[in-house]
Amino acid sequence: MLTVIQYLLDRLKQLGIRDIFGVPGDFAFPINNAICDDKELRWIGCCNELNAAYAADGYARIKGMSALSTTFGVGELSTLCGIAGSYAEYNLVFHIVGMPKIQSQKKHDIVHHSLGDGESSIFMEMAAPVVCASTMLTPENCVQEVERVIETALENHRPVYIAIPHDYVNADISSFTAPARKPVKSDPATLEEVVSIIAGKLSNAKQACIMPGFLVDRFGLKDLSMAVINASGLPYVTMALDKSVLDETNPSYLGLYMGKLINPEIREFVESCDCILTIGTILSDVNTGKFTAKLDKSRIINIMPSSVHIGYTDYINVKMLDVLEELSRRLNKRTDVSGPVASRPAVPEVDAEDPITADYLYAKYAEFVKPDDIIIADSSSSFYGLLPLLLPEGTKFENQMLWAAIGWATPASFGTALAAPDRRVILITGEGSHQMTAQEISQFYRHGLKPIIFVLNNHGYLIERMLSEKLDYCYNDLAEWQYYKLPEVLGCNDWITRKVTTCGDLDKVMRELDNAKTGAYIEIVTPILSAPSLMEKIHKNL
Amino acid sequence: MLTVIQYLLDRLKQLGIRDIFGVPGDFAFPINNAICDDKELRWIGCCNELNAAYAADGYARIKGMSALSTTFGVGELSTLCGIAGSYAEYNLVFHIVGMPKIQSQKKHDIVHHSLGDGESSIFMEMAAPVVCASTMLTPENCVQEVERVIETALENHRPVYIAIPHDYVNADISSFTAPARKPVKSDPATLEEVVSIIAGKLSNAKQACIMPGFLVDRFGLKDLSMAVINASGLPYVTMALDKSVLDETNPSYLGLYMGKLINPEIREFVESCDCILTIGTILSDVNTGKFTAKLDKSRIINIMPSSVHIGYTDYINVKMLDVLEELSRRLNKRTDVSGPVASRPAVPEVDAEDPITADYLYAKYAEFVKPDDIIIADSSSSFYGLLPLLLPEGTKFENQMLWAAIGWATPASFGTALAAPDRRVILITGEGSHQMTAQEISQFYRHGLKPIIFVLNNHGYLIERMLSEKLDYCYNDLAEWQYYKLPEVLGCNDWITRKVTTCGDLDKVMRELDNAKTGAYIEIVTPILSAPSLMEKIHKNL
Repeated sequence: MLTVIQYLLDRLKQLGIRDIFGVPGDFAFPINNAICDDKELRWIGCCNELNAAYAADGYARIKGMSALSTTFGVGELSTLCGIAGSYAEYNLVFHIVGMPKIQSQKKHDIVHHSLGDGESSIFMEMAAPVVCASTMLTPENCVQEVERVIETALENHRPVYIAIPHDYVNADISSFTAPARKPVKSDPATLEEVVSIIAGKLSNAKQACIMPGFLVDRFGLKDLSMAVINASGLPYVTMALDKSVLDETNPSYLGLYMGKLINPEIREFVESCDCILTIGTILSDVNTGKFTAKLDKSRIINIMPSSVHIGYTDYINVKMLDVLEELSRRLNKRTDVSGPVASRPAVPEVDAEDPITADYLYAKYAEFVKPDDIIIADSSSSFYGLLPLLLPEGTKFENQMLWAAIGWATPASFGTALAAPDRRVILITGEGSHQMTAQEISQFYRHGLKPIIFVLNNHGYLIERMLSEKLDYCYNDLAEWQYYKLPEVLGCNDWITRKVTTCGDLDKVMRELDNAKTGAYIEIVTPILSAPSLMEKIHKNL
Repeated sequence: MLTVIQYLLDRLKQLGIRDIFGVPGDFAFPINNAICDDKELRWIGCCNELNAAYAADGYARIKGMSALSTTFGVGELSTLCGIAGSYAEYNLVFHIVGMPKIQSQKKHDIVHHSLGDGESSIFMEMAAPVVCASTMLTPENCVQEVERVIETALENHRPVYIAIPHDYVNADISSFTAPARKPVKSDPATLEEVVSIIAGKLSNAKQACIMPGFLVDRFGLKDLSMAVINASGLPYVTMALDKSVLDETNPSYLGLYMGKLINPEIREFVESCDCILTIGTILSDVNTGKFTAKLDKSRIINIMPSSVHIGYTDYINVKMLDVLEELSRRLNKRTDVSGPVASRPAVPEVDAEDPITADYLYAKYAEFVKPDDIIIADSSSSFYGLLPLLLPEGTKFENQMLWAAIGWATPASFGTALAAPDRRVILITGEGSHQMTAQEISQFYRHGLKPIIFVLNNHGYLIERMLSEKLDYCYNDLAEWQYYKLPEVLGCNDWITRKVTTCGDLDKVMRELDNAKTGAYIEIVTPILSAPSLMEKIHKNL
């Protein structure tokens, strides 16, 4: 006998999924049971569903996809901010939801976790805008629908929603067989036209550059994008959301482009190019330096996952993969274009007893990071502090600055560490962000993971103070926690925990962490308004 | 000059609102600023938006309504589980959301906190099923729309959603005036028919009883419902969600009715009545003892907020208020109907060194509770343990067993304590529920509130173990926290904090708390499967 849940789990396992995040609940029990009973799968329980969704997002950023299971109503609605973030930022999460029994749905029973009106499909409808496909599985549609949502998920690399009524989870589906499906490919004629136009424009431009974006990573096309850059001989820059998507130590990498907010030499170079090839970028407010970037559409070629945009002309039915493959073979290598290289911020000279300033802190982070580290930064002032640093080879810098839900980074770093247990995972968060989701640090220890966590305590939401004209609005104040004591209370028994307030203390603890054999949690206290210079610039520009 | 936000805040203040819960965010800054700048309002910052929504729900249960403010996308979506709970359980929450500037919306700018597609109305649409009205304010529609949503909110006693574009918050609306509005009243002829049928049925029934429900509290009709009961001379019972809605020490109160799950004498009495008057109850799975209640529709009269249902006949356009007023005047008092009274669970005999069992714990809670206490219980095994207790006069027992989002109780008890600073607020939660939202206890201390918090540590989700046939599924295990140390770390510096494992310890700490002058947080450890007898019955019935 083959059941609905076994078919789904088998297919997810074939795609490489081994861990399923979530919070159990009675409508989802048969799903929870099947996961626990499957020796190839691990149930990764989280403290709450939003945290589970963030953890699944972090995991998907490393593994390419992840799975999440929650219960009807309360569970699924709690994930929506996290799922929406995965949707905005193209992370594939399979969200499996346990629903009431089908007869109970049909009879409009007033069950718990409902709105009290006997309706059961409303939550699937609420989730629809933040997933690329959704379905309620039945024994009859299971095979067809699982295949459809998987295909859509892989094509779009965004979350999908799969609900299963309680009594259908273990229903027999052995009489149904999977349909033959063919992945959608590029239209050959469009592909040829697009590639030859791009090759021509890059060859003929007086000055050109390439901007790889975070979608290159999401769609597994980093190497191919690097091959295109190498074939072109052109320099490349990245925007903020795209930081570290390709090697920042490569001599062709110039640095960060962010409109008027940073690196004026790079801005001048980029904005005077007559052709800019962007690959999987999004021109959001943050990426464009609050829309200060001057990027005339006429000069931009934008390769997106399933389309290409050359100036004002849109080409659909062309896949990024196919375009990049062709370009890597057909571009003429140029040796006549080079640009200015962004300078690395220097470590300010300080005395050991000095309080820790933002400038000192971020310069020290730059020294601290090693090749292949994974840094997860919250959408807080830390993000802006870390942006200008040039990162070592192989370092991955994960941020969520399109969706920008503060609090994401703590659970996301748990998911990331679980996905990459052999790499050093560094969480850098502000205390305001951390308060949102702090309980999830208890999961690291439970799974034997050893993150390095830096919590910046600057007495409130610094990013929000800096985004306001007035700096002292009461709503930016926070309850005062003793952050560095949290790991012990949350069960992380053997971690290194410290509270540092001076430059000397910070130096010492960073040396100590260099050889850390356990998890570490460092509370870094800075003066209330000590902000990265990029934030100060944003504040002045208000 | 009168601005959009000032009009809205003035109207909320006229309704009695003095506190606004929330988390700030840049799209909401002008709203946040206006709240902070208003000397009659307090900004109540919470650790995250879901917790803020739960806190607002708890506050509304005491004050009749509450207000919540969040930012675009990330903030509002994070509240949805909380808002849906307020919708399901009829708590009025004004949710005020800050949106991008109107020009930015019209230009489809890709802003942070969006899905990256330039759409800005999608989140309002996602929220629509869990609010009774929603609107986006403009200077032109502000007065009309604020009045409309307030009227709808008061009529339905459910959440409403009010979005304001960033640049409209402080726009001038002084040239617009409020429309004249008349509250909807009962249709006089329907009212007369309904009341005379009900009076006749209650007079002529061989045996009858009354079941007041939680909506009686929500619509501010407790006294009037008691007047109807007194006028009728009939006994009353309550279902689980409705516990403590009316005085449990009144001689006419029999106890809890929950189908086959508890109090067989009461079940027999209720189910042999030929007329049952329910006032604002909902026949959910929990209320009906997992649908074991036998309540033929033909024997039931159900008075709802804006409708009455007599047997199979539905009457609309009749208000609960009007029906109850008429009934309180016109019912004939019966002296010939009485029923059995539920027995109070006895305190088991124990030795001081014995581990704390569920039976002992809940019997001790019964001794501990004083008149006018407010008990907030999570949707955990504790709820089932507390249900059978008869509570002292004026004690309010708040639960959320229709929506049943575990984790609700911790922030809800903060909101409750803020709404009722002069009453003793007792939070009773399980550790699995508590892990979801535990950070919010830091807010009590910040606002000088002194709750008594009991956290039951029984090594996992006990309610879920008891709802499964197999008791040891791995997904019911939790990270091991040192719960009793949480308050100190979260800044509640002077609280009484204890971890108790024996009956003697529990007795001692309860005596100590009797005169507590500070907040208190007690971790109560019981054996892993020590469950209230009602839960054991549910487990056996699986």
